[in-house]
Amino acid sequence: MKTAAEYRERIMALKPNVYMGGEVVSRNDPRFTPELNVLSLTFDLAQEPAYEGVMTATSHLTGERINRFCHIHHSVDDLLNKQKMTRQYVQKTGFCILRCMGIDAMNALSVVTHEMDQELGTEYNRRFLDYVQDFQKRDSVAAAAQTDVKGDRSKRPKEQADPDLYLRVVEKRRDGIVVRGAKNHITMAAHADEIIALPTRVMTEGEEDWAVAFAVPADTKGVYLVSRASSPRPRQSLPAPVADQGWADSFVIFDDVFVPWERVFMCGERQFAGRLALLFALFHRHSYCGCKPALTDVIMGMTALVAEYNGVEKANHVREKLAEMIGVAELVYAAGVAGSVNARPASSGTYVPDVIYCNVGRRHAGESTYHEMNILADIAGGLPATLPLEADYNNEKTGALLAKYIMRNPKIPAEYQQRCFRMVGDYLCSSWGGGWSVAAVHGGGSPIMETIAILGNYDLNAKKNIARRLAGIPEQ
Amino acid sequence: MKTAAEYRERIMALKPNVYMGGEVVSRNDPRFTPELNVLSLTFDLAQEPAYEGVMTATSHLTGERINRFCHIHHSVDDLLNKQKMTRQYVQKTGFCILRCMGIDAMNALSVVTHEMDQELGTEYNRRFLDYVQDFQKRDSVAAAAQTDVKGDRSKRPKEQADPDLYLRVVEKRRDGIVVRGAKNHITMAAHADEIIALPTRVMTEGEEDWAVAFAVPADTKGVYLVSRASSPRPRQSLPAPVADQGWADSFVIFDDVFVPWERVFMCGERQFAGRLALLFALFHRHSYCGCKPALTDVIMGMTALVAEYNGVEKANHVREKLAEMIGVAELVYAAGVAGSVNARPASSGTYVPDVIYCNVGRRHAGESTYHEMNILADIAGGLPATLPLEADYNNEKTGALLAKYIMRNPKIPAEYQQRCFRMVGDYLCSSWGGGWSVAAVHGGGSPIMETIAILGNYDLNAKKNIARRLAGIPEQ
Amino acid sequence: MKTAAEYRERIMALKPNVYMGGEVVSRNDPRFTPELNVLSLTFDLAQEPAYEGVMTATSHLTGERINRFCHIHHSVDDLLNKQKMTRQYVQKTGFCILRCMGIDAMNALSVVTHEMDQELGTEYNRRFLDYVQDFQKRDSVAAAAQTDVKGDRSKRPKEQADPDLYLRVVEKRRDGIVVRGAKNHITMAAHADEIIALPTRVMTEGEEDWAVAFAVPADTKGVYLVSRASSPRPRQSLPAPVADQGWADSFVIFDDVFVPWERVFMCGERQFAGRLALLFALFHRHSYCGCKPALTDVIMGMTALVAEYNGVEKANHVREKLAEMIGVAELVYAAGVAGSVNARPASSGTYVPDVIYCNVGRRHAGESTYHEMNILADIAGGLPATLPLEADYNNEKTGALLAKYIMRNPKIPAEYQQRCFRMVGDYLCSSWGGGWSVAAVHGGGSPIMETIAILGNYDLNAKKNIARRLAGIPEQ
Amino acid sequence: MKTAAEYRERIMALKPNVYMGGEVVSRNDPRFTPELNVLSLTFDLAQEPAYEGVMTATSHLTGERINRFCHIHHSVDDLLNKQKMTRQYVQKTGFCILRCMGIDAMNALSVVTHEMDQELGTEYNRRFLDYVQDFQKRDSVAAAAQTDVKGDRSKRPKEQADPDLYLRVVEKRRDGIVVRGAKNHITMAAHADEIIALPTRVMTEGEEDWAVAFAVPADTKGVYLVSRASSPRPRQSLPAPVADQGWADSFVIFDDVFVPWERVFMCGERQFAGRLALLFALFHRHSYCGCKPALTDVIMGMTALVAEYNGVEKANHVREKLAEMIGVAELVYAAGVAGSVNARPASSGTYVPDVIYCNVGRRHAGESTYHEMNILADIAGGLPATLPLEADYNNEKTGALLAKYIMRNPKIPAEYQQRCFRMVGDYLCSSWGGGWSVAAVHGGGSPIMETIAILGNYDLNAKKNIARRLAGIPEQ
Repeated sequence: MKTAAEYRERIMALKPNVYMGGEVVSRNDPRFTPELNVLSLTFDLAQEPAYEGVMTATSHLTGERINRFCHIHHSVDDLLNKQKMTRQYVQKTGFCILRCMGIDAMNALSVVTHEMDQELGTEYNRRFLDYVQDFQKRDSVAAAAQTDVKGDRSKRPKEQADPDLYLRVVEKRRDGIVVRGAKNHITMAAHADEIIALPTRVMTEGEEDWAVAFAVPADTKGVYLVSRASSPRPRQSLPAPVADQGWADSFVIFDDVFVPWERVFMCGERQFAGRLALLFALFHRHSYCGCKPALTDVIMGMTALVAEYNGVEKANHVREKLAEMIGVAELVYAAGVAGSVNARPASSGTYVPDVIYCNVGRRHAGESTYHEMNILADIAGGLPATLPLEADYNNEKTGALLAKYIMRNPKIPAEYQQRCFRMVGDYLCSSWGGGWSVAAVHGGGSPIMETIAILGNYDLNAKKNIARRLAGIPEQ
Repeated sequence: MKTAAEYRERIMALKPNVYMGGEVVSRNDPRFTPELNVLSLTFDLAQEPAYEGVMTATSHLTGERINRFCHIHHSVDDLLNKQKMTRQYVQKTGFCILRCMGIDAMNALSVVTHEMDQELGTEYNRRFLDYVQDFQKRDSVAAAAQTDVKGDRSKRPKEQADPDLYLRVVEKRRDGIVVRGAKNHITMAAHADEIIALPTRVMTEGEEDWAVAFAVPADTKGVYLVSRASSPRPRQSLPAPVADQGWADSFVIFDDVFVPWERVFMCGERQFAGRLALLFALFHRHSYCGCKPALTDVIMGMTALVAEYNGVEKANHVREKLAEMIGVAELVYAAGVAGSVNARPASSGTYVPDVIYCNVGRRHAGESTYHEMNILADIAGGLPATLPLEADYNNEKTGALLAKYIMRNPKIPAEYQQRCFRMVGDYLCSSWGGGWSVAAVHGGGSPIMETIAILGNYDLNAKKNIARRLAGIPEQ
Repeated sequence: MKTAAEYRERIMALKPNVYMGGEVVSRNDPRFTPELNVLSLTFDLAQEPAYEGVMTATSHLTGERINRFCHIHHSVDDLLNKQKMTRQYVQKTGFCILRCMGIDAMNALSVVTHEMDQELGTEYNRRFLDYVQDFQKRDSVAAAAQTDVKGDRSKRPKEQADPDLYLRVVEKRRDGIVVRGAKNHITMAAHADEIIALPTRVMTEGEEDWAVAFAVPADTKGVYLVSRASSPRPRQSLPAPVADQGWADSFVIFDDVFVPWERVFMCGERQFAGRLALLFALFHRHSYCGCKPALTDVIMGMTALVAEYNGVEKANHVREKLAEMIGVAELVYAAGVAGSVNARPASSGTYVPDVIYCNVGRRHAGESTYHEMNILADIAGGLPATLPLEADYNNEKTGALLAKYIMRNPKIPAEYQQRCFRMVGDYLCSSWGGGWSVAAVHGGGSPIMETIAILGNYDLNAKKNIARRLAGIPEQ
Repeated sequence: MKTAAEYRERIMALKPNVYMGGEVVSRNDPRFTPELNVLSLTFDLAQEPAYEGVMTATSHLTGERINRFCHIHHSVDDLLNKQKMTRQYVQKTGFCILRCMGIDAMNALSVVTHEMDQELGTEYNRRFLDYVQDFQKRDSVAAAAQTDVKGDRSKRPKEQADPDLYLRVVEKRRDGIVVRGAKNHITMAAHADEIIALPTRVMTEGEEDWAVAFAVPADTKGVYLVSRASSPRPRQSLPAPVADQGWADSFVIFDDVFVPWERVFMCGERQFAGRLALLFALFHRHSYCGCKPALTDVIMGMTALVAEYNGVEKANHVREKLAEMIGVAELVYAAGVAGSVNARPASSGTYVPDVIYCNVGRRHAGESTYHEMNILADIAGGLPATLPLEADYNNEKTGALLAKYIMRNPKIPAEYQQRCFRMVGDYLCSSWGGGWSVAAVHGGGSPIMETIAILGNYDLNAKKNIARRLAGIPEQ
């Protein structure tokens, strides 16, 4: 396993292809510091004995101890531990650990490359296992680029006015392929070693060119990372961990990018495109069953803290709202547990969690996020929106007056009260908090996508047969 | 294990103490047939090889194969199997399996009798294990009598105008105790072999007389079972399984009932009363995480069937509502799975499921029942309420006209359509369906009780510490 | 205006064409007494000075004082008074006043007959005004038969396997027309003087035969009223107003019924069929904005009463739930007020309420009904489902014990407590209560129908223009 | 009536007492431009003939045509017009019109000063009417300072560790009073002519010093306005009306401020403090029944527009969500209409809207805001959070690529698509949008405050009597 310092060093050695605010920027731009802090944490905690076995795993390929973010799940316990790891990391960062897309993409590829080889006689899995071994050794950080820009959503890839609106193969060469297109909302692509591209949907006949999966180093020629960094307002005099963390999303453009065959994991097998797309989504929704409960933990913790500071912690309606949030967190986590416990090994040996449980869990989380923000806003009152700026607390004239008038419980220092409301303001009233909420709805698939997955996989006829039998109608 | 015939025979041999409609009635009264059908099923299926290991278990006392309803859980798998068994039975009956209270009471007693003995040097556990052995051998059916009538809910037991409003010990003798009081809403007491009384709440100092637990044969002198049978409207010419099933609740009155010491499992140890009350509730809520998903399966199946018959099965809003019900069923079941997987053995060796998961699961179910009925009513339309009576379908003049005008999908016979809507009417528009809905809210504890259990057991301060750390405030 | 006695007398003089339970029954069958009680109330209160101007009106045709149920609205105040009247009646009956369909059908016809005459040169309005005058003079009670049985809901009337699945004209004669078909869920048809048939939907080209509206006396040859009476369980020894009220729905079959031209109000003008269907729905939804708040009043009152008896009236969660019900009742009523205040006169002079307000109001009510039942069940506890039968309270042995053990607040007599829970049981756990709930969802149009009406009438582009302007995009 | 130019001129002439970011700032600071734009609109539109009678009124004191924001309501139509005006203004600004607090404070004072004079023989109303006349003539803009900082919320004003945590009179002089304390979340105080202070709650015996109401010019000695400006991200190359609007909140500190008697409207009459507090809240909630529907209009319009751009406008789930938002907007507006129609004149002649309707309306709005944001986020997808910065669209390399890949419907120019998502991002993912959402929950009183008002004013016993009568229990 590598250290955070090693990780940062190699990231800074990448060729400059990150754009932000109209210019090429360094991957070390100060606006990226929060994202680097978060990613570094995934190296730091993996070194700590306390997290052994949760944040680390044993490679099924080499038998070596590796960062769990590089692991292919080979048991129910692997899945339970991945979920546990995710919740613990997110409780630390307060919003997202950023690195889970990689593990989810790798696991999906481990299954589908094997299935393609079995059915079609291809050799994707061999290539992929080589790639995994190197990935684990380098302790790589990967961004999964799945979501195409999609153009007119009422049309299929092949029907778009511009065929590039879904990423596609524009040329096949002896040594590799050339791809063109763009992937959107790609978190931490600006600080990934690798970008792993996956199809975003089922592909039908005639859409072979869009059935493509591969991995490229993040600074490959032709890759543009147009990025937007987001973090809570930087602190002036009241530093706080929450303000040191953040992320950047990238609009990832593949402008005729060459990919050597050794890094191509699907190319034209359109009948497997949907399988890969959905399997990545499944692993990622399983991750969400770990991270979303932690997000609820954070909102719940803030709500309880602000209720304490406001002196309303014992109020019945506050207690009921906290209990409601506990319900969301633990139902979603339970769904992940049930998804893990009911996992089944694929032909590759990879453990695949249960599709229904992961989807009902992720959906419940996604449907609850804004409601949780509502509860926090409700209990916090107006101050997260109207708290004067830090500098006004430092001003000679107004500082003492503000400290006097922010007082609530006399036992809690004015500074703590300011700290509490400033943090709540970061969540409720900042562009970062707003982006975070949108991500909580859409990341890993919007609730409507989970509904589609649920309806596509659930045996409703079995339930109708229960009704038929009770009614005295022959089962079908 | 016994057969259903053996069970029925011994129940009919009980002394008459069941009242209904103002008179003593036979336990074989036709209005009780539905309840007997349901209870018999728990003997029949346990004999079938297909259900081996799920509906049966191996006694930890004798090593013999027993009905799982008589088993003390000794592993995570026991709990998972109990949950599975419950869902399967309830999918068959369409509403309730009636016999789960016994297993839940027995498991709670197995834990608390052991804890009392350890701490107080009593000998309850030895007595209890004797009782269990006999119980398993006889394949007994037990009603758990927990809910006291409670009088003025704003007052404690010792503060009531009438001290009998909570069941209590009125006399201690050398050979046993005499108890007085009443327990309410006791399902299937009229067809139980045994009635197991448990405290309903925490008892404080001075409430030793109300801290009492025991088991008596259901026809013990002084026990009055004032019962109310409930089942779908009996069919005249269109028999259907749904109409053959039902239940009866009893108002169980203990009018100075003598209980020999061998059957007394708590008597005055008031500091353990709450532990026993809550532990029974916990085991019972775990059961609900099995049965409630099956109830949702039934409502979901009916909704899908009636949607098919109405020709709206593909309509988007219908599909979304079905997906919503799937979400309820599987989140609740997942909560039970997570509750089982995270179970811990008590000092007695009994496996106790996780309190948070079981409570969030049960609560989610209880909060969703009426909403599910609403969805069913919504998709079914008005016909469940206004479908003409069976006899009108048999009348020469009106029968043919009704058959003509009930037609929807021409491929589905008029009789099936009538069968379908008649069944839906049983759920939505009968006293049985209404009672069933109330039971789904309150059985095993109302949502508000689960909220109390959740708040009493959840480590909210740990969540506040997450917030404190992020804000830069010292943890506490 | 007529008296209730006169009304009953003329109803009993009708020819027998009511079927129930497989045979022709008298309109005076004891199972119909509850419905007759309700309808009689609309004659009784109209005679009371206290309700003058609310339950009565002045005919715009004759200037005479008439029952408001026979009135054509000619002002905003007429609509406000109709809404007020409806709420007051429903607060008395506890569930439905049954007679509002007539007024709503008459008002819709008053508009559309006039519009047809203006556009097509027909003479429907003259006929209709003659009919109205007679209707007002006789103080007639009319059932509106709108909902066709509809067969395969994915097909149009003309596409059905059986063309009779929507009511249609099968023959036009010199002196009138012959109609065939069936209308479903027709409340109180068994005790109506008149049955007014209206189209149920928009009709397209080739569906002229299904575009038909007319009125016939309820005992016209060929009309079959297959009925199903529904009321709370009759009381044995504890009479209560709630148990004296109820209703009967009919499956109304028109088996080649002749209608003279003077009573035909639409015949083939298919371009006006939808207008008439939707206008009846609009007037009826306006009525619901009066009656549904009263239904909430009743559930709210019961909830508050049972909370008082249970000693939890001051509990925070109970108070919040009561406040939630107040919100439903008053938002729905407010929608009716806004619908009345924004009414516009049609060409006939009839005041037509605003379509958006009436639809958002009705929908909010329909979406809330099961939730309100849930609250009532939640606060009441299990007793509405398990309360022993009346006779058990009268039994020598069990009566005293039950009276002892039902006690809650010592100041409230046992009988009141029994009365309260018995009534709540009528609502929550009887076929009447279940039917009532289904009616509250579907009567006047299900929530999905209101959504369709709202989307069809709302100027969404105006709202998009607000957004376009703010974004700097040209308005469209 | 004055012009916007006159208003700006006099505001800029105020003495500097506005603090932001640690220093005294000019009221013309560029960060305040958005707020000034909004306030200027209230002068501009009042001059336009199209809004005559809606945005203007006739003074009941002078008979002159005045800005309706300075008017005391004297009829139902005044209230209906105020509601209409508010909705129209807010549809223009896209979030808030800022000036309504003044009119609501003035109307509340008009009532209570009269009632105090009648009951106590004071002369507040005479003073107040003088003040109104001047206010109308100057076309004044007033901030209402009601919400005290409140310290420990579990304690009353007199019980606080620091008595200044509620604004109070610290000295009474011959010529006036001296007040100390702070009011929080005071919108647009930095650009108000006047600050009107009102009590925030009921005051009990011994709290006379806290029962104080008065008006002072905004730059009075001792008044500190610590402000926080908030607006959408300023545009660089894509100007849009949404980005030109915004607001600033102030922490208003009264550090021993002298108020001459002519401007004191309550001083010690603690039995009227609650009346004044609640009456201001009532008028303000009536305003919210006008403004919140407009906020929903804006969110609804954006949702419909982004759905069109995404090509999903016809999707069933999108249409249903739009219909849901229509329901919220129109139910809330209807509540305001019913509140207006049922208004009653106070002893002063001021028309006071109905307390129940205004409160159920405001509460429904406040409970729906985050849900509406959720719908917008749901339909918009991730782009509002991840849209690259404007400058990246202007960069030579990335600009063309981004324009290519943002394309959806080929008929809608890339710039419009960018404009649309940039605006949605302003609402969902900016500190302004977050603050706006918090304001929509708490402004005018949080939902819990409306619940309290509803329960305090509703005749629940009348509803219990409905239940009692139906059950056969004597009414009480």
